[in-house]
Amino acid sequence: MKHLNTPISTHAMHDPLAAMRERFLIPEGVRYFDGNSLGMMPKAAALQTQSVITQEWAHGLIRSWSDAGWHTLAKRTGAKIAALIGAAPEHVIACDSTSINLFKTLSSAVRLRPGRSKIVTDSDAFPTDLYIIEQVAKLFDLSVVAVPAKEMLQALDHEVAAVVLTHVDYRSAEIYDMEIYTRATHAVGALIVWDLSHTAGAVPCELDACGADFAIGCGYKYLNGGPGAPGYLYVAARHIQDCEQPLAGWFGHARPFDFTQNYAPAAGIERFLCGTNPVVGLSLLFHALDAFDGAALSDLREKSTRLTQHFIDGVEPRLADHGFSIASPREAQRRGSHVSLRHPQGYAVMRELTRRQIIGDFRMPDYMRFGFAPLYNTLQEVDELIDAIEDIMLTGAWDKAEYRQRRDFT
Amino acid sequence: MKHLNTPISTHAMHDPLAAMRERFLIPEGVRYFDGNSLGMMPKAAALQTQSVITQEWAHGLIRSWSDAGWHTLAKRTGAKIAALIGAAPEHVIACDSTSINLFKTLSSAVRLRPGRSKIVTDSDAFPTDLYIIEQVAKLFDLSVVAVPAKEMLQALDHEVAAVVLTHVDYRSAEIYDMEIYTRATHAVGALIVWDLSHTAGAVPCELDACGADFAIGCGYKYLNGGPGAPGYLYVAARHIQDCEQPLAGWFGHARPFDFTQNYAPAAGIERFLCGTNPVVGLSLLFHALDAFDGAALSDLREKSTRLTQHFIDGVEPRLADHGFSIASPREAQRRGSHVSLRHPQGYAVMRELTRRQIIGDFRMPDYMRFGFAPLYNTLQEVDELIDAIEDIMLTGAWDKAEYRQRRDFT
Repeated sequence: MKHLNTPISTHAMHDPLAAMRERFLIPEGVRYFDGNSLGMMPKAAALQTQSVITQEWAHGLIRSWSDAGWHTLAKRTGAKIAALIGAAPEHVIACDSTSINLFKTLSSAVRLRPGRSKIVTDSDAFPTDLYIIEQVAKLFDLSVVAVPAKEMLQALDHEVAAVVLTHVDYRSAEIYDMEIYTRATHAVGALIVWDLSHTAGAVPCELDACGADFAIGCGYKYLNGGPGAPGYLYVAARHIQDCEQPLAGWFGHARPFDFTQNYAPAAGIERFLCGTNPVVGLSLLFHALDAFDGAALSDLREKSTRLTQHFIDGVEPRLADHGFSIASPREAQRRGSHVSLRHPQGYAVMRELTRRQIIGDFRMPDYMRFGFAPLYNTLQEVDELIDAIEDIMLTGAWDKAEYRQRRDFT
Repeated sequence: MKHLNTPISTHAMHDPLAAMRERFLIPEGVRYFDGNSLGMMPKAAALQTQSVITQEWAHGLIRSWSDAGWHTLAKRTGAKIAALIGAAPEHVIACDSTSINLFKTLSSAVRLRPGRSKIVTDSDAFPTDLYIIEQVAKLFDLSVVAVPAKEMLQALDHEVAAVVLTHVDYRSAEIYDMEIYTRATHAVGALIVWDLSHTAGAVPCELDACGADFAIGCGYKYLNGGPGAPGYLYVAARHIQDCEQPLAGWFGHARPFDFTQNYAPAAGIERFLCGTNPVVGLSLLFHALDAFDGAALSDLREKSTRLTQHFIDGVEPRLADHGFSIASPREAQRRGSHVSLRHPQGYAVMRELTRRQIIGDFRMPDYMRFGFAPLYNTLQEVDELIDAIEDIMLTGAWDKAEYRQRRDFT
């Protein structure tokens, strides 16, 4: 590793998370920088879920709803996630998808602020958030004010019912201060919904301590719950009993097995459930979260910062001349766990990296996004990534006919 | 088997589905009559899904969205279900839960009928349908008219925007005629949403031929997709392009990977998707549906009818004196694939059956519900069930202190 300034053994010596990598299946020959899009597979989660299918389902059958605890799986999974986002265990629940959870929490929020006319959000939010916000606004006859996150504070007034903001920007990795935005939202009497999709599992946050109202997030990124894993949601204790969410299905009922014709919401966070728990997907996520056992949040943050800083420190001297710019904050405290580069040929470079089994992702129009998962990525992998990009530029390997035809990066 | 009038070999001889049972894992010693609540595990589906987890996810990682076809899994699964419900393959998609799919389709329906004031439904519908209907009505400022299914036709007028009806009643197994209710709904200019949860996989139906507008259903009953499997939905070809559904997440976008700020719905049935496809759950359902390969719908219906009739024919002479009444239609053509008995001690009898590993379920207040899945239940099992109930009554085995304390049956 010609570009390593310190030997690998030194890196490992100072990394309390080094042993965590063993909890994941790392495919031979692959360098993976897309844990912020789809986390790697925790080996134990796959084993446990196999047993959910071939034992709990196949042999326990319907009895497993009580005997194997399927009824409480959404809440038990939520409790594990709570520990990563600064929430009390009973105020988080895993269910449905991130988009649907935004619909549920935002609808609840605007119902708590009747008579107001606006939802304010970040115009650069991940698109699905914008689409759902638009529909909630339409159903509740509100208008949407979408401005860049940095201008949102100026957009707040007493007509605002709710604010939606992603804590770590999906492209730039910029962190928006949870305390500042929450306090400003409350100052005008509005409620805030935080999207923690690029936060949980890599960047600490303190929902309860910041006084956040609602939060949602994704189960398949840094939480490693598997493709299309259930999302999760958080509701502050002071709001739960007052919330009425439109997807009021039977699993959110106080007594679902009374089969009563009238809906009576559960007293706790379960009122945010809708249909039957997706047991197999929840089980994968539930067990995947054990990969965090013994990992202090401060160590996760330190490792994450070290990885992103190592990448930036390597990119600046070696790739700037090749036309790459860094689209993520230089100040570590303002940066999440991924780094985006911009380059006019970014799409072709990513395709060539993929061919070499070095995997990141691409976001329109020219963002090359590399996620660094503190549980399994290493400094050595970061060096290999920089080496590969430099090699692709030096050899012109990005300039292939097949790369001119775009196809989807997920 | 003292009560069998015909030898088992004769049963098998006339049963073109007899070999299908081998496709399922049948736990030793269990007699299972709850396939209408949670279907048994198809062995091949478990194997295939194990490979989705440990190969496609673990090794393919993010690349599997395109390389393993995860992007199209919802639609490919829907196409398989379409074949069981009389729909063209491109008009069905598997996603989310039954409750959420009701929300999406019913919201779309009432948006297609602006200016009308009512939703009509069956007051005896499965409760989650009633809860969701109530919320849709609230969001769109409509009232709900909930009357017994048999009185619904009289409740139709030109103020009705939409009708929601379950094709096979979850307690009685009564089948409501799809053509008659659909035609009557259309006669007043309204749209109908059919709930096929107790239909698909056991009772044929003809959505396209009947001119149905929308349908939804459950993936974990007769379709055997596993606990909390994704549901599905159907939209008639003539409506798809005009539908606007409120859970408009990125997977329903025409070009999700353009990451545009404005929502543009997909042209086809994909516009009813919301968040990221739940790949593992979808995969189980996708492969579980192969258990129907080679099973003609007419054979499924004939087997189902033979099983329910055999149960009724045995119950009447042997259990009537013990206080059991049959709460399902006697006429086979009006009856779905389960039979409900009523008995004042029904709860205790079900608990004792469960102790003996004979599994059905209980629905308030006194319904003992037995589902007969044509792919794997046998006439011999039906005889064993009747024997057991009779034995429990003759010996008084239902009369145990622990059975006086109710707990949930799922």
